[in-house]
Amino acid sequence: MARTPINPSLYNRCVHRSRVSTLLIDVPLDQVPKSVAFWSAALGIRPQPVTGEDQFTSLPGAVAGLTTAIQGVDDAPRYHLDFETDDLDAEASRLIGLGAIERSRWLDCRILQVPGGHLVCVIPVHSEPAEFVRAARVWP
Amino acid sequence: MARTPINPSLYNRCVHRSRVSTLLIDVPLDQVPKSVAFWSAALGIRPQPVTGEDQFTSLPGAVAGLTTAIQGVDDAPRYHLDFETDDLDAEASRLIGLGAIERSRWLDCRILQVPGGHLVCVIPVHSEPAEFVRAARVWP
Repeated sequence: MARTPINPSLYNRCVHRSRVSTLLIDVPLDQVPKSVAFWSAALGIRPQPVTGEDQFTSLPGAVAGLTTAIQGVDDAPRYHLDFETDDLDAEASRLIGLGAIERSRWLDCRILQVPGGHLVCVIPVHSEPAEFVRAARVWP
Repeated sequence: MARTPINPSLYNRCVHRSRVSTLLIDVPLDQVPKSVAFWSAALGIRPQPVTGEDQFTSLPGAVAGLTTAIQGVDDAPRYHLDFETDDLDAEASRLIGLGAIERSRWLDCRILQVPGGHLVCVIPVHSEPAEFVRAARVWP
């Protein structure tokens, strides 16, 4: 998803912030067209391609409060959540300290498997910076 | 999750409404304690048992705009979404008409597998009725 540049002066560098920002509907590549057709009709939303990131199809307004998109993957279907953060290393370390295991990295994303077995990605902030600062939790 | 009684006079019976209301973090039963511990610490939320529905642990405020809970299941870990609706039959039929397959029923819930492979449950309205009417989509 498109990243919004961040003004570092907005943040107190002694802490970091995070929040659940994004719901991804991960779909096997050959199922993407029928998945996009279903979700857009089921939710009454016009799907939008994401410029420069062809694997994503955005579903704007699908779920109140969450960026929602379909992602074509070379894997089984699943949902996953993204945690957006202003400090990838600190947030990944925090979640690993709570029992998550880092499974892989992809571009700026850290892909973690959390206790209970679910996948979570830690990603750079992609919300509007002021909205992120307003809504995110602050971690020491 | 607790159900709020609905005043039928709020609804136009010629149509029905639905919206994505709930994110369930389904966890194998023996993993529930560690999953609850992780998610509550990761999100900074005090988990709350759900009276009369021991399989659920609510995570109030976890995700803006979505009811969020951990559910113990006799199955693999996964996330799933609930569509709340004022007409279960009409909403299930609508989604089936879009390609979903009904996999099972559990109490008032219809468990559907949608195109692309994801699970969705269709459930009775559990939000406050006025909030539901405000936020839900109307379907003919």
